[in-house]
Amino acid sequence: MPFSLNVSNVMKKSETISTPTKTRTLNVDLGDRSYDISIGTGLIDDVVRLVPRDLTGRRLFILTDKNLEKRAGAQIYKALQDGSSAESVEMLTLPAGEATKSMANFERVTAWMLEHGVDRHSILFAVGGGVIGDLGGFAAASVMRGIDFVQVPTSLLAQVDSSVGGKTGINMPQGKNLVGAFHQPLCVICDLDVLKTLPPRELRAGYAEIVKYGLINDVEFFEWLEANGDKVCAADTESCAYAVETSCRKKADIVAADERERGLRALLNLGHTFGHAIEAAAKYDGRLLHGEAVAIGMALAFRMSQDMYFCKPEEADRVVKHLAAHGLPTDIGMIKPRLKVTADELVANMTKDKKIEKGKNTFILVHGIGQAFLTSDVSLEDARAIMMDSLNVRA
Amino acid sequence: MPFSLNVSNVMKKSETISTPTKTRTLNVDLGDRSYDISIGTGLIDDVVRLVPRDLTGRRLFILTDKNLEKRAGAQIYKALQDGSSAESVEMLTLPAGEATKSMANFERVTAWMLEHGVDRHSILFAVGGGVIGDLGGFAAASVMRGIDFVQVPTSLLAQVDSSVGGKTGINMPQGKNLVGAFHQPLCVICDLDVLKTLPPRELRAGYAEIVKYGLINDVEFFEWLEANGDKVCAADTESCAYAVETSCRKKADIVAADERERGLRALLNLGHTFGHAIEAAAKYDGRLLHGEAVAIGMALAFRMSQDMYFCKPEEADRVVKHLAAHGLPTDIGMIKPRLKVTADELVANMTKDKKIEKGKNTFILVHGIGQAFLTSDVSLEDARAIMMDSLNVRA
Repeated sequence: MPFSLNVSNVMKKSETISTPTKTRTLNVDLGDRSYDISIGTGLIDDVVRLVPRDLTGRRLFILTDKNLEKRAGAQIYKALQDGSSAESVEMLTLPAGEATKSMANFERVTAWMLEHGVDRHSILFAVGGGVIGDLGGFAAASVMRGIDFVQVPTSLLAQVDSSVGGKTGINMPQGKNLVGAFHQPLCVICDLDVLKTLPPRELRAGYAEIVKYGLINDVEFFEWLEANGDKVCAADTESCAYAVETSCRKKADIVAADERERGLRALLNLGHTFGHAIEAAAKYDGRLLHGEAVAIGMALAFRMSQDMYFCKPEEADRVVKHLAAHGLPTDIGMIKPRLKVTADELVANMTKDKKIEKGKNTFILVHGIGQAFLTSDVSLEDARAIMMDSLNVRA
Repeated sequence: MPFSLNVSNVMKKSETISTPTKTRTLNVDLGDRSYDISIGTGLIDDVVRLVPRDLTGRRLFILTDKNLEKRAGAQIYKALQDGSSAESVEMLTLPAGEATKSMANFERVTAWMLEHGVDRHSILFAVGGGVIGDLGGFAAASVMRGIDFVQVPTSLLAQVDSSVGGKTGINMPQGKNLVGAFHQPLCVICDLDVLKTLPPRELRAGYAEIVKYGLINDVEFFEWLEANGDKVCAADTESCAYAVETSCRKKADIVAADERERGLRALLNLGHTFGHAIEAAAKYDGRLLHGEAVAIGMALAFRMSQDMYFCKPEEADRVVKHLAAHGLPTDIGMIKPRLKVTADELVANMTKDKKIEKGKNTFILVHGIGQAFLTSDVSLEDARAIMMDSLNVRA
């Protein structure tokens, strides 16, 4: 397996891991806000050494959710308590789930840090999936007008996507991620051990975002996934190490080139304009995970590209087949229980998405696998037609 | 009067102004986030030309307060409606006063913009004093992870202080400005006409922040104020133009050198560590304006510096006399109705201030007028003693 970035060997403090792997370190190059992503096993126990700051005398804060409180949360709490000379270590546990990413919890997390004497040298550790990372990141960006934070993503989705790039935020009644900040972490710690405890459906949803990186600009990576996707979805350590590293490296390269999403970075939204519209229709009630919505969105982007003669039908078929083979939905009609929504309502959701600016319908389409591109040359009528068809497909 | 920065002449659209003055333009040099501060008369009517963006097709938002709704608010609304080809112009009016700078209103302002279709090209105009500027700035920093905003400061305090520097934020139960963002405006429009309608007490409170710039590092400016302070406090246009320009230039220079307040910028907090502690004790109930608290804080900083032999007693006396001559309080005991607070409680407030880090008691003291410096060489016991004395002084 090729590792193109600076890969360093790391001494292990913990010997509790069954399948240790070499720790990979990627650097996200953002000038004076550059940071490292560490990918490996046993990393949570090693947190004190991985954080590029002397923790002595600092007030440390851990934000986590109910599912992780007794596992990764307790583990990092112990590692920080025992291994650092921090002034204090506080932990706050919030309910798991998308509803936690709210304004009310933004207030709660910032107030909690303030009550416990947060100062400009404090560090927040966000231990969880995208919800905890996004909420914690926005709270860290805002309390005292910005303190350092460390991302410890515990879902496959968060490891390959939401922990890289500095986007933080909360949901509003009007839509997802509509209030937030760009705030880069001090470092990102992807401990592959946590993947072993994830439900298979959640692993598959994370896998959809991994597939996305192949579809955007790397047909070879897509081919690797065709050969090894089953192992990734089974949380095999070596396969996940490679898939997470490749995904993070791709995202890091794109983010470094376009931190504020003025152009290139928009390609990372492949499948997301459709996906967000579908997610909004499902009202985040649990029947559709974000990665599943992205899988449907990517399938629709390929189908639309095929209909517009940008992409060969075989390429679209190959993508749909690969997603389906890994237990991912590829049409809106496959969602169970069935979404009560019309194509018009989905189009209306789409125009509320913040990627669509001032009546310009910017879509990410494809010339084929590994050949995504940005276009405004799409009418909402085309999008409506695709979604209408997709509503009528059943698994 | 010397104008050292690039001063440009501006054509007037409005001829309604009794004492027109040449418009001064200062540039705040922050690389690709640089912006201009315009200082002059009739500027609100001229807003479309002053904003360095084509407003055609954009969604524009005006945030203001009840006191300004029918004056500057209505004025800018008309100027934008009539003079730009904006897609829409919306205005939200909040109650005047410090209590408006809350998390609840942060939610309200962001939700209001989202309801009215804010997108990444939208611009928020914050028309008001520091409360509207800070709240509006934080909302603009956060909605869609950051849109452009224009500061239209309508109090003397906001014109010389809170509209320059990019600090935005809201108050929390734990203290002032504890949640927020660094977000630079697109431009700042200081219309001197609005000063004519301010209550004298508010003008004097703003004047305290002007005095601060002389005390930090410019004895000549302090001497100019000794000669012209009365005219500034009477809202004389030419005197205010010079005082506002000099203050903004000084703040802009310091901010450009130290945007994130890592060193130099801390000097701008002269009088503020004491001031914030006193304000917190007054619970923002209206008996003490921010500028009045800063006046007391500066007097205490000079008294403390005198007690520690950093500063000659004559210098401290001269400062106290100047502040008192312009109707500003210089001791805690002068606040009416009298503050029910002990020196210990004031010290406790002080240690909650975010300028005090991890038990380090950083103070801004002075070697004399125009010679402020940062020191950690002060015990909280010294601060307690000064405040104890000050509590016992009556006007």
